[in-house]
Amino acid sequence: MSEHFDLVVIGAGSGEAVVDDALSHWRVAVVERADFGGTCLNRGCIPSKMFVHPADVAVLADDGPRLGVRSTAEGVDWTAVRDRVIGRVDAASRDGEETYAEKPHVTVLKGTARFTGERRLVVTLADGDVEVTADRVVLATGSHPVVPDIPGLADAGYLTSDDVMRTERLPARVGVLGGGYVGSEFAHVLASYGARVTQVDSAPMLLTNQDAEISERFTAAVRERWDVRLETSLERVSGTAPHTMHLSDGSSVEVDAILVAVGRKPSSDGLDLEHAGVEVSEDGRVVVDEHLRTTAEGVWALGDLSSDVPLKHVANADARVVHHNLLHPDDLRSADHDHVPNAVFAHPQVASVGLTEEQAREQGLDLAVGRREYAEVAFGWALQHDPDDDAAEAAGLVKLLADRRTGLLVGAHLIGEQAAILVQPLVQAMALGTPVRGLARAQYWIHPALTEVVENALIDLEQDLEAGPDNA
Amino acid sequence: MSEHFDLVVIGAGSGEAVVDDALSHWRVAVVERADFGGTCLNRGCIPSKMFVHPADVAVLADDGPRLGVRSTAEGVDWTAVRDRVIGRVDAASRDGEETYAEKPHVTVLKGTARFTGERRLVVTLADGDVEVTADRVVLATGSHPVVPDIPGLADAGYLTSDDVMRTERLPARVGVLGGGYVGSEFAHVLASYGARVTQVDSAPMLLTNQDAEISERFTAAVRERWDVRLETSLERVSGTAPHTMHLSDGSSVEVDAILVAVGRKPSSDGLDLEHAGVEVSEDGRVVVDEHLRTTAEGVWALGDLSSDVPLKHVANADARVVHHNLLHPDDLRSADHDHVPNAVFAHPQVASVGLTEEQAREQGLDLAVGRREYAEVAFGWALQHDPDDDAAEAAGLVKLLADRRTGLLVGAHLIGEQAAILVQPLVQAMALGTPVRGLARAQYWIHPALTEVVENALIDLEQDLEAGPDNA
Repeated sequence: MSEHFDLVVIGAGSGEAVVDDALSHWRVAVVERADFGGTCLNRGCIPSKMFVHPADVAVLADDGPRLGVRSTAEGVDWTAVRDRVIGRVDAASRDGEETYAEKPHVTVLKGTARFTGERRLVVTLADGDVEVTADRVVLATGSHPVVPDIPGLADAGYLTSDDVMRTERLPARVGVLGGGYVGSEFAHVLASYGARVTQVDSAPMLLTNQDAEISERFTAAVRERWDVRLETSLERVSGTAPHTMHLSDGSSVEVDAILVAVGRKPSSDGLDLEHAGVEVSEDGRVVVDEHLRTTAEGVWALGDLSSDVPLKHVANADARVVHHNLLHPDDLRSADHDHVPNAVFAHPQVASVGLTEEQAREQGLDLAVGRREYAEVAFGWALQHDPDDDAAEAAGLVKLLADRRTGLLVGAHLIGEQAAILVQPLVQAMALGTPVRGLARAQYWIHPALTEVVENALIDLEQDLEAGPDNA
Repeated sequence: MSEHFDLVVIGAGSGEAVVDDALSHWRVAVVERADFGGTCLNRGCIPSKMFVHPADVAVLADDGPRLGVRSTAEGVDWTAVRDRVIGRVDAASRDGEETYAEKPHVTVLKGTARFTGERRLVVTLADGDVEVTADRVVLATGSHPVVPDIPGLADAGYLTSDDVMRTERLPARVGVLGGGYVGSEFAHVLASYGARVTQVDSAPMLLTNQDAEISERFTAAVRERWDVRLETSLERVSGTAPHTMHLSDGSSVEVDAILVAVGRKPSSDGLDLEHAGVEVSEDGRVVVDEHLRTTAEGVWALGDLSSDVPLKHVANADARVVHHNLLHPDDLRSADHDHVPNAVFAHPQVASVGLTEEQAREQGLDLAVGRREYAEVAFGWALQHDPDDDAAEAAGLVKLLADRRTGLLVGAHLIGEQAAILVQPLVQAMALGTPVRGLARAQYWIHPALTEVVENALIDLEQDLEAGPDNA
């Protein structure tokens, strides 16, 4: 006997947002094998920022004496933060689950789903299997950390972003595998809390998805805080706590824990999607059209499982599109993945939106470039960014790119204090198609707030636009 | 014998920006009686923010243990900050003066100017008077602190924002007279650096120019850090260091210094403007039209001397207007003082733009209101704004006002971390006339950056707009 629903949602992370009271005329099942709230709430963005903020405070307090502040910092109490963070996010996850369980039109199925046919599933619960059929299915199983096959790693044991924040004690020495945003944020956290960090990546720089100039500055800055091994790979691990990481340059590093952060992969395995008629691309992403329909009639997908931009703010937007499209089959909306900003909450902070200079030049765009160092604006003086200091290379920068043909912003790249906030007026201009010419002067910027670095980069960009390509 | 110039600029603060190489076909005189760079560089915005940032770091470091950070803070080394700040701004001021002195078309006159006729001046230099005539005159003498006539105050001696940052040592106990932004920023600085502060104002709240709800929260928050005496005035001062402040409630407070910060006044006195045919309003402001022309032919004014919005970013904009108008007498631009944001760099930080709720209701606007507490967004969790904590009343808030008739933002009021940066996308929307409907969803906001509090306040505002006036 199978139970029939109007809608089945698989994955109560961003999938949760699809289900609300506008669907109360439907019988809805929400299938979740782990915790409500998904990666973001339980193992991702939210708890990681709760770990990052104390790290930022520790860095500031430690740096205080340079500014004349009689402050000290001796790391951060990992266990205290862990308990606070886990307490908060676990409660939020439980609240989320209870909220759904109490809705009369929603059935919560805590288990693992796999397809046996078109919109036909088996869900394995704690007390057995149930068969489920549905008129509509939303796939929202997200993504999970990739673990490379390195000799000795599995035997040695390792952490990923899934479990590092639940570790009871701060390891004294940590090897961080991966130079992307996850590895770099955790390296910042672990180092600030008091661990000795060795970060390993085969690329020549950290944060290689960012504009090269930003990557370079970031790499230079964090090298002053922890050991960064670039163009290096982990060949073998021996021992169990402490482990020895044997690196491709012939050196070895003894550590008490290894954090694997080399990338994430869509969680499409195990769903038996071939039975559902849902096509999956070579990289494991569920294939969707602009309306987020999969290749199977009545089956939708959203978020990291299908997205070309695996970020939570995009998954939330996807969920709004799917919600609308479920209710309005004759008036489908399209997902818009343009002008998506991203941030790396390390120290220095990094944020960007749009094309890097390298991508823009590769596309053959006729580029205007605007730049401003934090050190050149008054609030930069307050932060004591000294233009005469050699370390300024690693200090704050706003770099803007415009297409000379259209006069529009095509990329914005920021490194330095509050980059994740400072980027927003630029996101707004890009999203609304506001021309660069006149943008800085059409509005007031508080003097002397840090926003002046954005204002001045825009003015520099405008001057480059006016000057024409010869002055590029 | 008088010397004739094409242009005389009186005041090398914001007036400096009027003089550039586009005027190199003119003989230009710049008259300055004190330091180049004016109040902002020498005694105002810039050095004060250089004092504020260490105060912010001290507050964060002191608060660290609440977050699990093993940090301590024992105030700030006033003298170290003072020396760094004064060194930096004095050098910038000298550089500014030298830059102008080296321009072949510019004559720097270090002295005090007063009019003897229409565009006819006497400048009193160190070595005597010179008579100067000009085709055009720009008045940019700025403003200065008001000192009220309180018995015993002059004899006791007092500080103002002009000299407090040059004081050699931090006074142990300071009386701050005035609850506006200058008094409140310095109270934050002095208290964080280690002084015992008593702030006195006759108003029922601090920051009475802000939206009442923001003033209330600010007042409640800083009351936990220093002694705030409201609806109280200073009636008399006795003694000289220590002084006794005798207050209107019958109490008295012993202090080592008194900082007077009750307001500022346009510096129009002493210019003998009546000889120039330049009209001055009752409050001391030089009267200007929309093109910043005074009532005297060929005489312009800008900045705090004439502005209804005495802020540096407005003075800079004024200087650009005057610069254009001097060069294009047949194509005059107008000064635009709309949508000017302001910030109070205290802790908590405050920023706002546009009308307060009280002003909007007084104007009879049909208002929609959107709100979001920092505690309600993920980064607020990281900052540990706890919605269940009673102190949340004093914690971060974004409050937005829209006119139901036009669907446009008319005011934005923020209190909390990074308010001065967070306000910018709202300023941009107001300045560009972007409708509230759709603004939040037209752009991505990084999850979980603090900008989400603005995003969510916009969504709340939009919902109130949709709901219509009955739900207000």
